[in-house]
Amino acid sequence: MLENSDAQNTQERFNEIDKALESGMFVLARSILDKMHACDVALLLESSPPTKRKILWSLTDHDEQGEILDELNEDAQDSIIALMDATNIVSATEGMDIDDLASILRGIPDSLYQEVLDTMDAQDRHRVEQALSYPEETAGSMMNTDTITLRADVSVDVVLRYLRLKGELPDATDTLYVVNKEDQLIGDVPLSTLLTVDPSLSIEQVMNSKTEMLEVGMDDGEIAKLFERYDLISAPVVDENKHLLGRITIDDVVDIIREEAEHTMMGMAGMDDDEDTYAPVLSSAKRRTVWLALNLVAAFIAASVSNMFEATLEQMATLAVLMTIVPSMGGIAGNQTLALVIRGLAVGHIGKTNARWLIGKEAAIGLINGMIWATLVATAVTLWKGDITVGYIIAGAMFINLSVAGIAGVTIPLIMHKYKIDPALAGGMALTTLTDVIGLFSFLGMATLVLKV
Amino acid sequence: MLENSDAQNTQERFNEIDKALESGMFVLARSILDKMHACDVALLLESSPPTKRKILWSLTDHDEQGEILDELNEDAQDSIIALMDATNIVSATEGMDIDDLASILRGIPDSLYQEVLDTMDAQDRHRVEQALSYPEETAGSMMNTDTITLRADVSVDVVLRYLRLKGELPDATDTLYVVNKEDQLIGDVPLSTLLTVDPSLSIEQVMNSKTEMLEVGMDDGEIAKLFERYDLISAPVVDENKHLLGRITIDDVVDIIREEAEHTMMGMAGMDDDEDTYAPVLSSAKRRTVWLALNLVAAFIAASVSNMFEATLEQMATLAVLMTIVPSMGGIAGNQTLALVIRGLAVGHIGKTNARWLIGKEAAIGLINGMIWATLVATAVTLWKGDITVGYIIAGAMFINLSVAGIAGVTIPLIMHKYKIDPALAGGMALTTLTDVIGLFSFLGMATLVLKV
Repeated sequence: MLENSDAQNTQERFNEIDKALESGMFVLARSILDKMHACDVALLLESSPPTKRKILWSLTDHDEQGEILDELNEDAQDSIIALMDATNIVSATEGMDIDDLASILRGIPDSLYQEVLDTMDAQDRHRVEQALSYPEETAGSMMNTDTITLRADVSVDVVLRYLRLKGELPDATDTLYVVNKEDQLIGDVPLSTLLTVDPSLSIEQVMNSKTEMLEVGMDDGEIAKLFERYDLISAPVVDENKHLLGRITIDDVVDIIREEAEHTMMGMAGMDDDEDTYAPVLSSAKRRTVWLALNLVAAFIAASVSNMFEATLEQMATLAVLMTIVPSMGGIAGNQTLALVIRGLAVGHIGKTNARWLIGKEAAIGLINGMIWATLVATAVTLWKGDITVGYIIAGAMFINLSVAGIAGVTIPLIMHKYKIDPALAGGMALTTLTDVIGLFSFLGMATLVLKV
Repeated sequence: MLENSDAQNTQERFNEIDKALESGMFVLARSILDKMHACDVALLLESSPPTKRKILWSLTDHDEQGEILDELNEDAQDSIIALMDATNIVSATEGMDIDDLASILRGIPDSLYQEVLDTMDAQDRHRVEQALSYPEETAGSMMNTDTITLRADVSVDVVLRYLRLKGELPDATDTLYVVNKEDQLIGDVPLSTLLTVDPSLSIEQVMNSKTEMLEVGMDDGEIAKLFERYDLISAPVVDENKHLLGRITIDDVVDIIREEAEHTMMGMAGMDDDEDTYAPVLSSAKRRTVWLALNLVAAFIAASVSNMFEATLEQMATLAVLMTIVPSMGGIAGNQTLALVIRGLAVGHIGKTNARWLIGKEAAIGLINGMIWATLVATAVTLWKGDITVGYIIAGAMFINLSVAGIAGVTIPLIMHKYKIDPALAGGMALTTLTDVIGLFSFLGMATLVLKV
């Protein structure tokens, strides 16, 4: 039978399960769950509040639990593992790819971790311990060790017979690797080559010797870039002496790309990308505190700028009404530039030689925007308040703030990048504080000067 | 020779080319460019300001230009194509995958487009016109038509001999497709299966009949989700009667995932994700105008709220100093919730049944945050200004605004999603306007009531 599963189908199943749970028909719910793909069950668990998640998990098939765990995001995974004991974890994760198993074990509490290791058989324990010996988010921790290796001097025919004897290849195998006697990688042979060349040729004659290799310590962002750039499906991982250690496949890389994107997007709003949509209230509230605290400091810095001009504000309350406009426009303009630069840094568009050009460009845009919006705002304010002096003041402040915003929008992330601070996390807050301060200072400062005259 | 190319290596080459260009050694620059991978040349072009980009393009190898064009992002592609005439375009794009060619042709001006079509040979023209007949961003416009199809009744051995005769498979082929006499898809055979099964078996006996199929009208976001969920490398595209039309491969899907992520990230800052980092000043300035105009409207709405309380502000300038704190905290808290919901909608975590739970959760977080920050700010303000009344007022406003921010952070994106408005684009502005208005109104409103007493 042909399947044509799509999002709508999945949503329908979710609704059926909801109905079954509501009317207490757990047997029905279990049978629907059994028919679902592990990744869909994972999606359903991620989409469920804590209590419902617990019930659903208890209804899943034990043999499927490992695969479901593997598909869950980190936070949801933690919430499920908290429901299991060591024996459960070991039996659920049996036969799981070693990189996935290692990533689950990284997340569990130390006491449970030791217990899980003790419950495993010796061979699995050894493999897991090795995988865990590589730092997180490097090629070593992501790789699978299920590579098929060949020698250069055998014929294609021999390889074909060997594969037929083997009967099955590891998941997502598109390439076999060629190693020398020292186990050093010297080339690769795609499956498509094996199928199309003359079987009497030797592997050496048909192999590709320009293999893209990943060093075991390479970090995951770099790996994702290489996969994207060279359209790779899988790539071998080697140590510094080019000994083949394992391979990384595109499905893991797709996850990295998605996670990096989420990290940037959530980070810009001051959120942790691991945050579970349906996490309990208190743990969510706690996670958001740091960002709110930082913003409170920023807000007080801005307030202390206005405080310097309290006498002026007392003299003319209209200034208080208008004083939020200039900071707001500066924040928006600066954040536009910031987003452009964050993306540019992420995809590798911004190097030393062109950074200066970019600062010049964004400063020019700031000047042009400054003139346009200064004129518009001044006109609007003069018409509204019937006071052309205030119009001049807000125009001057707007021009200054938008020019500063353009330059700061480039330089702040570049400086942060240089000092290894993630501009997606800290850039927006720093920029907004600056444009608030400059906006308020220039507007209220000029007003004070004019009022004194 | 083994290559171990990484980002550093690429950056070094970029520097070499820069030096060569600066000292006018164009022959040297050309020879470095010749040695580079098309995707690296594309990266270099994307990283260059307009003038340098033109010079670099004129130095690239004509035979490589098609591949380089294909690797460029949309805006940079447009800037390069503007330098070419119809004959150039046709010769550069010869032999390009049909989906990539179609995507380039979509971008060029109508007059040039007709000229390019006229310059092509009849067969290519027919294929391009067919590809262009499918709507943009659907399976039809993304697919390649270079599938290899098999009949179910032949033996594996016959297929193996056929492939050897063919001599080469299309790029990223990991699966062959099985069709019946009506050209309807009935299954697939991975290359790894062909290599491991007994060659005397028939295709019918070894094929996988649970193929994930993509309908030709399916949109690209949906396709990306399916690839991610089922860890696909390639998938067949069919029409409504299951006739095989082509296939989509993971490299195109990786591009979609990256583009969607950029779209969300840039969109949240009011930027177009197509924007070229090194676009000319004027075209960049123009693109950012709409967003700044919208923000100006929002800023004037907020100002008109303060304007209602001008008399109060006149009476007590301290209120003007403090009035920006509550809106600022509300904006940040609301945007945290908004980011969570935007991600939840994107990955499909939020359905009808759990939306209510989520609103409840975020409202609860808003209440808790409201109490915490109300207390803290009130204490700080009382100590700073030595006036406990103002402390009470700001505490009340903070509590109201953070509670509203939590609820609005969920409901605004959900409502937008329902009416097919992208919350990543419009959500932040709508939310910030709301929290500004509520923040100012509650703070100044309460102050007015208290001062009158």
